[in-house]
Amino acid sequence: MNDTMVTLVGNAATAVEHRQTTAGVPVARFRMAATSRRFDRTRECWTDAETSFYTVRSWRALADNVAASVAVGEPLVVHGRLRVREGEQSPERGGQRWFAAEVDAVAIGHDLSRGTAAFRRVTWARSVPLPPQSAAATDTPTPASTPPPSVTESAAATKTERAAAASAVGSVTA
Amino acid sequence: MNDTMVTLVGNAATAVEHRQTTAGVPVARFRMAATSRRFDRTRECWTDAETSFYTVRSWRALADNVAASVAVGEPLVVHGRLRVREGEQSPERGGQRWFAAEVDAVAIGHDLSRGTAAFRRVTWARSVPLPPQSAAATDTPTPASTPPPSVTESAAATKTERAAAASAVGSVTA
Amino acid sequence: MNDTMVTLVGNAATAVEHRQTTAGVPVARFRMAATSRRFDRTRECWTDAETSFYTVRSWRALADNVAASVAVGEPLVVHGRLRVREGEQSPERGGQRWFAAEVDAVAIGHDLSRGTAAFRRVTWARSVPLPPQSAAATDTPTPASTPPPSVTESAAATKTERAAAASAVGSVTA
Amino acid sequence: MNDTMVTLVGNAATAVEHRQTTAGVPVARFRMAATSRRFDRTRECWTDAETSFYTVRSWRALADNVAASVAVGEPLVVHGRLRVREGEQSPERGGQRWFAAEVDAVAIGHDLSRGTAAFRRVTWARSVPLPPQSAAATDTPTPASTPPPSVTESAAATKTERAAAASAVGSVTA
Repeated sequence: MNDTMVTLVGNAATAVEHRQTTAGVPVARFRMAATSRRFDRTRECWTDAETSFYTVRSWRALADNVAASVAVGEPLVVHGRLRVREGEQSPERGGQRWFAAEVDAVAIGHDLSRGTAAFRRVTWARSVPLPPQSAAATDTPTPASTPPPSVTESAAATKTERAAAASAVGSVTA
Repeated sequence: MNDTMVTLVGNAATAVEHRQTTAGVPVARFRMAATSRRFDRTRECWTDAETSFYTVRSWRALADNVAASVAVGEPLVVHGRLRVREGEQSPERGGQRWFAAEVDAVAIGHDLSRGTAAFRRVTWARSVPLPPQSAAATDTPTPASTPPPSVTESAAATKTERAAAASAVGSVTA
Repeated sequence: MNDTMVTLVGNAATAVEHRQTTAGVPVARFRMAATSRRFDRTRECWTDAETSFYTVRSWRALADNVAASVAVGEPLVVHGRLRVREGEQSPERGGQRWFAAEVDAVAIGHDLSRGTAAFRRVTWARSVPLPPQSAAATDTPTPASTPPPSVTESAAATKTERAAAASAVGSVTA
Repeated sequence: MNDTMVTLVGNAATAVEHRQTTAGVPVARFRMAATSRRFDRTRECWTDAETSFYTVRSWRALADNVAASVAVGEPLVVHGRLRVREGEQSPERGGQRWFAAEVDAVAIGHDLSRGTAAFRRVTWARSVPLPPQSAAATDTPTPASTPPPSVTESAAATKTERAAAASAVGSVTA
């Protein structure tokens, strides 16, 4: 509720760090660079403008699959919750200020405007060894892991669409 | 300017139609189902709510790569410009009303929360045989095709990040 | 969870319909026009492109305040959950297909790029006469009404910011 | 192109600073606090989660109107381009790192879920004394100021909608 959702289109600027929380929940983390583009009216072409860097975090199946799929420099589209965190280190650790523009990812994919991708569905049983709710409670407030949405009925959906949706759901639970 | 940007997380509900415009610009089109999720407080779990259907369109390299990569039922994240079009068929064709919620895609990727993807970069030379500007002018107003953004300097980017960004750009233009 | 959030910038295309559900929950509804803009390179200026129409719905305090504040033609910014609904009327009612691109609003405001606004805070006691949860359950799935977020602590927020945030919260509950 | 659009719902955390660039372009700047909300399953209610702070910037008419309309603590909805900037001060100035999560606003409005607003349209002649293009070029890359979108034809728009749209446009140019 009231989350600031954001979609980043850019490149993985670091390798993916993949680890487990103490409760056994997979977590993945990498930095992402998003570069905006401007149309240069004088030269009549698009040119790069500024680059913003974000820390992208993910949990559970998304974390596992990102770690297995994403390499440094690859083009990505990332959708998630944005938050800006700032603080100061303790005096013992230097007392410096720190900042982070973080995106807690809901969905991450390779940007197909730059290349092709061969996708392989992963069943959830393998990637969520622990009960997600209790694990989440101890580790982090947001990363609600939800099973893939099945596609429900719509009066105007064609039969083909419904069949496709049904087979999609079927292949998830199979 | 003033475009309504939207990010859909869902499934391809139809196969991808891939064709060329009369000017030779590749175009891809498919239907997408996005299902929202609700937390059922009584049963203490997430359940499917409604499904919305959208027509997703893409052009040029994105169109080629989507056609080569996306199959019916696969989970996707789509970012693009939303528009709602409505009208009436000519009396000769039945006079029925038609309606389309369309997303002109800027980026499309497989949603890694459901599986893994092996990404392969495609060089632009292959997929844009015609000068994009003139081709676009005759076919469609929006699909501005832009080269991949290179990653520019940032004081706070670490050396690793800059190196990663540089190698990313390198592999694009190579 | 997994909602498709969208932000519309445009104009109220109809007057606001304001009514109560059978459970006594205020509801407001109006149509909104969002027109995209394109830069015409030949004429070197921005021109109107297409207009999309949406049905904007709101509940409770937002519904009351929109009804009290918004007139036809006024420029607005609307943030909320998008859904696309389609169906067919019953044969008795003509059997025609119907469509709706709806936005269930989380926030609505007059767009200050077109004019000024004098804002007056309304206390919640007046506008939510019934327990929101139970009322919502019978009427509509989404419109979770939440009290205004108070502004919590942040290490990097200046004293002025914290004071401002505190006074904001104070005036809400006063 | 490829901008990271974001919509913030929150409160003005500082007063609005209003000034002119050397080229005479009005600029407004304030800090904004956006607090996310979580549903606490144990206590069965919504509670505040984290607050993120952003710097919101606007130009021209939007800057003038924001300065004339927005006070500290007021609830706002802000739509614009997000960028994250980081750097280091020069050694003479202390050499400290600085950081900014900035939103270059396209639209700003008072959030009507917290109160009512009396809107008054401002004609553009008053607020843009200088040719915007040339002024923009010297001052800042992004803040493209565009005239209000007129509402164009749509087959499905009712007559009332079209009339409303027309009167809206009329009152702008009057």
